[in-house]
Amino acid sequence: MEESFVPFRGIKNDVEKRLKCYKQDWTGGFRAGFSILAPTTYIFFASAIPVISFGEQLDRETDGTLTAVQTLASTALCGIIHSIIGGQPLLILGVAEPTVIMYTFMFNFAKNRSDLGSKLFLAWTGWVCMWTALLLFLLAILGACSIINRFTRIAGELFGLLIAMLFMQEAIKGIVDEFRVPERENPKLIEYQPSWRFANGMFALVLSFGLLHTALRSRKARSWRYGSGCLRGFIADYGVPMMVLVWTAVSYIPARSVPKGIPRRLFSPNPWSPGAYENWTVIKDMLNVPLLYIIGAFIPATMIAVLYYFDHSVASQLAQQKEFNLRKPSSFHYDLLLLGLMVIICGLLGIPPANGVIPQSPMHTKSLATLKHQLLRNRLVETAHKCISNNASLGQVYGSMQEAYQQMQSPLIYQESSAQGLKELKESRIQMDAPVDENAFDIEKEIDDLLPVEVKEQRLSNLLQSTMVGGCVAAMPLLKRIPTSVLWGYFAFMAIESLPGNQFWERILLIFTAPSRRYKVLENYHATFVETVPFKTILVFTIFQTAYLLVCFGITWVPIAGVLFPVMIMLLVPVRQYVLPRFFKGAHLQDLDAAEYEEAPALSFNLASVNMSRSSSFASDGEILDGMVTRSRGEIRRMCSLKHTSCSETSSKELKSLQSPRVSEKVYSPRVSELKGELSPRQRARGPFSPSAGESKPSNLGKSG
Amino acid sequence: MEESFVPFRGIKNDVEKRLKCYKQDWTGGFRAGFSILAPTTYIFFASAIPVISFGEQLDRETDGTLTAVQTLASTALCGIIHSIIGGQPLLILGVAEPTVIMYTFMFNFAKNRSDLGSKLFLAWTGWVCMWTALLLFLLAILGACSIINRFTRIAGELFGLLIAMLFMQEAIKGIVDEFRVPERENPKLIEYQPSWRFANGMFALVLSFGLLHTALRSRKARSWRYGSGCLRGFIADYGVPMMVLVWTAVSYIPARSVPKGIPRRLFSPNPWSPGAYENWTVIKDMLNVPLLYIIGAFIPATMIAVLYYFDHSVASQLAQQKEFNLRKPSSFHYDLLLLGLMVIICGLLGIPPANGVIPQSPMHTKSLATLKHQLLRNRLVETAHKCISNNASLGQVYGSMQEAYQQMQSPLIYQESSAQGLKELKESRIQMDAPVDENAFDIEKEIDDLLPVEVKEQRLSNLLQSTMVGGCVAAMPLLKRIPTSVLWGYFAFMAIESLPGNQFWERILLIFTAPSRRYKVLENYHATFVETVPFKTILVFTIFQTAYLLVCFGITWVPIAGVLFPVMIMLLVPVRQYVLPRFFKGAHLQDLDAAEYEEAPALSFNLASVNMSRSSSFASDGEILDGMVTRSRGEIRRMCSLKHTSCSETSSKELKSLQSPRVSEKVYSPRVSELKGELSPRQRARGPFSPSAGESKPSNLGKSG
Repeated sequence: MEESFVPFRGIKNDVEKRLKCYKQDWTGGFRAGFSILAPTTYIFFASAIPVISFGEQLDRETDGTLTAVQTLASTALCGIIHSIIGGQPLLILGVAEPTVIMYTFMFNFAKNRSDLGSKLFLAWTGWVCMWTALLLFLLAILGACSIINRFTRIAGELFGLLIAMLFMQEAIKGIVDEFRVPERENPKLIEYQPSWRFANGMFALVLSFGLLHTALRSRKARSWRYGSGCLRGFIADYGVPMMVLVWTAVSYIPARSVPKGIPRRLFSPNPWSPGAYENWTVIKDMLNVPLLYIIGAFIPATMIAVLYYFDHSVASQLAQQKEFNLRKPSSFHYDLLLLGLMVIICGLLGIPPANGVIPQSPMHTKSLATLKHQLLRNRLVETAHKCISNNASLGQVYGSMQEAYQQMQSPLIYQESSAQGLKELKESRIQMDAPVDENAFDIEKEIDDLLPVEVKEQRLSNLLQSTMVGGCVAAMPLLKRIPTSVLWGYFAFMAIESLPGNQFWERILLIFTAPSRRYKVLENYHATFVETVPFKTILVFTIFQTAYLLVCFGITWVPIAGVLFPVMIMLLVPVRQYVLPRFFKGAHLQDLDAAEYEEAPALSFNLASVNMSRSSSFASDGEILDGMVTRSRGEIRRMCSLKHTSCSETSSKELKSLQSPRVSEKVYSPRVSELKGELSPRQRARGPFSPSAGESKPSNLGKSG
Repeated sequence: MEESFVPFRGIKNDVEKRLKCYKQDWTGGFRAGFSILAPTTYIFFASAIPVISFGEQLDRETDGTLTAVQTLASTALCGIIHSIIGGQPLLILGVAEPTVIMYTFMFNFAKNRSDLGSKLFLAWTGWVCMWTALLLFLLAILGACSIINRFTRIAGELFGLLIAMLFMQEAIKGIVDEFRVPERENPKLIEYQPSWRFANGMFALVLSFGLLHTALRSRKARSWRYGSGCLRGFIADYGVPMMVLVWTAVSYIPARSVPKGIPRRLFSPNPWSPGAYENWTVIKDMLNVPLLYIIGAFIPATMIAVLYYFDHSVASQLAQQKEFNLRKPSSFHYDLLLLGLMVIICGLLGIPPANGVIPQSPMHTKSLATLKHQLLRNRLVETAHKCISNNASLGQVYGSMQEAYQQMQSPLIYQESSAQGLKELKESRIQMDAPVDENAFDIEKEIDDLLPVEVKEQRLSNLLQSTMVGGCVAAMPLLKRIPTSVLWGYFAFMAIESLPGNQFWERILLIFTAPSRRYKVLENYHATFVETVPFKTILVFTIFQTAYLLVCFGITWVPIAGVLFPVMIMLLVPVRQYVLPRFFKGAHLQDLDAAEYEEAPALSFNLASVNMSRSSSFASDGEILDGMVTRSRGEIRRMCSLKHTSCSETSSKELKSLQSPRVSEKVYSPRVSELKGELSPRQRARGPFSPSAGESKPSNLGKSG
């Protein structure tokens, strides 16, 4: 995306490009048939459960002014609007933790003002939303999203880790509160007597840790040894919502021997109980807000605008990572404009606005990639079986699969990148002319290797999941059966789930890793920096980033100034661009924090994914995709550069053996560095940074006890 | 060991052989200095904690007639006697679960008899012990231990799994009881009110699952990525007792807000409180037992004798596995005689007798192997550093290490197997003449590979740990601070810890493993049978064994006949020898259940351990030893046969790649069977069983979704 700040140009481009594939967005979705329900329900649970949790949190923080009904309504409304007229339908909208924090700040400010109070709080937030929308419009029109390429890892990952910390804080706070009498309750009730309070707290510990543990386990079901692949896939996809059901059921086991209020459950009122829909008429009160506050609303509005600009764009960016090989265009400018519109609507309805959310948006793309993969595979397996039964040779089978694959490619008027076709057959399969022996040839496995990553890009799954979230409002009496402690467990789960793949987090872990085990980092993910950047530089960089994170986290604790935390994160963009290069070598910064504007031109991701699927031998397609989404921008550069240089077959093999040290019988530390020595010509070909890459070697992976 | 049933010959042989190294047993222990304390404390905790748990269980089951004081006293007394005048000092004695079950049966029988009652219960058990001892004397004198080679996996592993089931049953029962009013307590007390009972139960869940989870995690500390190797080793060795301390501390956190009885803690009386030492004078009552019961005591005595004969011998056998390369002789016959003597002493003192315990005995040997390894390594590293600083070549360094190693070998008058010397250097180290570059050469790693497994065989650690167990009696007021729920967690931990390495258990898991993942079994442990025995045969064999196990487990539930369960297990020996060969092919039985009398002659374990240390590349010595002890008899045969046949270097390499499928870039199922095809000449060389091995291939590891 070129940087262009001519007003309206970005929006115009986005709309023109997306309109060309608008019809296909719908037909493609309907053509997938019932199989679209798998990613839909998957993302529905991932979207609804946090929104309910946030609603519960808002309920406590705003003394019941806003509840899960409002957060669900906002998420459903914005989701439906975005899925129908939004630019990038892969983006998932929802009420997110930063929004909750901002609303909490605003409520705490408003309730202590005699001329505002909690009565006019929603009307005042209506004004805040107005200002926010205005700012978002300006940003969209002036093409602020053009600088999205300057959002490097350092800002995005720090933001990710901050959100994880906030989630974990909520989980801990929630569990501690289970031992206490809730503020708005009558402490004379039997369930608030010391013995029952203690019992309730202990029960909450059991339920929340039970959920956390089983949910984390179920996510790894694809690599379990037991059960059929189908069952394991099902558990991996639906295990977390299933566990919410299971632990809710468990919470009813002692029902006969405990008072009704134990364990505590969701508090939100039913949407049809009196008073629960006061917020919908907030527009009437908006003119009652004193003028000073209407103008003052500009201050929080700036923060929210910065936050939404950043959050919305980054979520959209992560949903459209290069690894996914998307074929339809992005739409940053237009989506920001539309977000402004939705903020106005939410403000007038007195509900907190929704914006693009992490990690649900990349999760959505990923689940659609799995869907597309299954659709393609079924077709190719059928074709291959037909050919093999005709005694075709491997070459012929491959040819007819290639043909079937091309037929599956729906013609697009606008195509950002051309279809890639099947990958080439591996060299090992040399007997191209002999008839294929069906018994010695695992067709499904072979096809998994041949298929490139592709995503079923359409609008239907987003529309359906938003509608289902809306349905939750009606299902409130059912949702109220979920114990709050299960939600605290879910918060902790979300915090932990968001950590892998965050390079910042991996670097923190690296610091605590025993020197003799640092090679293990290479086993798990592509971490160029471990090899090319001296450990001391990694250490200093990570300590700087951690200090910055703690400052951001600390600010959220400050009563009123806390509203400034989005500015702190945005500030990282200029800090990264102008300040950090003075303290770190360019090459090191490049490896630790690749900014796209510094990166080599994009190349097809073919080779990298082939490498990856080989290194995780026997991994099913789901596992490969699981692994894929945890990686982010910049990490594939090294693979790409392999194609640039005319490196021999040998060095490519050595690269593989370096990536997964288990390949060699026994990898001594000295041998690792030897291997790296052999690799250095390739590294040198990467650009002007080769000397440092060479220098830094001994200090990284040297031997030590 | 040859089979000989000439009276007294076995005992005479044992005593003669052990006497020759008796002095060295002590000097060797003292020469190790303070480092002997590491295995001592390790085995002390592994020994004391279960004995306390069993004491608590006996306390409940016998209405307080026997408590943890008695079990601790018995364990300490028998341990001290055995460590001083016993034959095999590696064997650890303790009051075990089967003893507790037998005593429970006897108590339930006695308390309902009007002319016996719980008052004469201990006097009656005194008579049972007399008969038991008599039978044990007879067995020892007649050389019954000669048939120890006929105890195959099927009996030992079924017994191991039965013990695991009994442990788990106790854990579950214990936790359920935490929600109930204890039988002997006043239900009017505040801590037995419904709310506090519920709170206590929930707290118990938290404490027991907390202990279970953290203890299991800490055992794997050696392979953690974080922390120094030293810290990780410490956590792996002492993590479990540390966790008992930690969770006991946690149980005191809510002390101010809960009544005194929550959580429930150990109940045993202090040894100095009145009535707690009634059992010591039980000898006075023995003549008050009616004659009919004195004669009738022969029936439970038979069961206990069978049980002890089996349990004591198997524990001793597991502590002396071939893999440990022990250099001092075994002493089955004499140890059984001594056990008889100790049973008499315990019977007269009114305490339950102790016998050789699993898994503590093999754990003891293992910890002493780690100790010996460290002692040897320190010396060799010192030697090597000295040589390298003199610019010696690799050949010279190896030579001087070889010399230093020989000096460390204490000369033994009696030696069952000759010292092996250092292993040969690997072929990859070809530059024998060039001076060694200290930076490119990780001395400690290299030495770890060169050292064979050896055990510091001595009597000091056993004596010290028994004395420390005795010290626990005095420390009863401290032990009583441990919550009972922590003990239930520990029971569950022991049950789960005993499963890995049990081939029967691994086969049960294999049945539930998805066909496409069965190759993973090969990754984890040496499982010849997966390759050579058809899956259907494995299935039938495992179902038979499981049914037999369930029958044994069911019998322990039957009120009086339950006393028969040891007979059921001993019955497996003839069943295996005479009945099973009619239903299964000899070759398959050989692979599923290797009896030593059918086995190929023993060979040095060198090659197998080299292979193992290579496949687990980068594993530290502790990890290797961890892995070693989980394997049992018979599994190394395959490695040995490699040495028998003059197989080429190539096939040996293929063997390695088969063992760890990750070695090859991507191992397809068809390729696995190809590899196996290449291996078959070696398999054929193993003996008369090759055809079946060939036939069975397709059915085992064929492709499937």
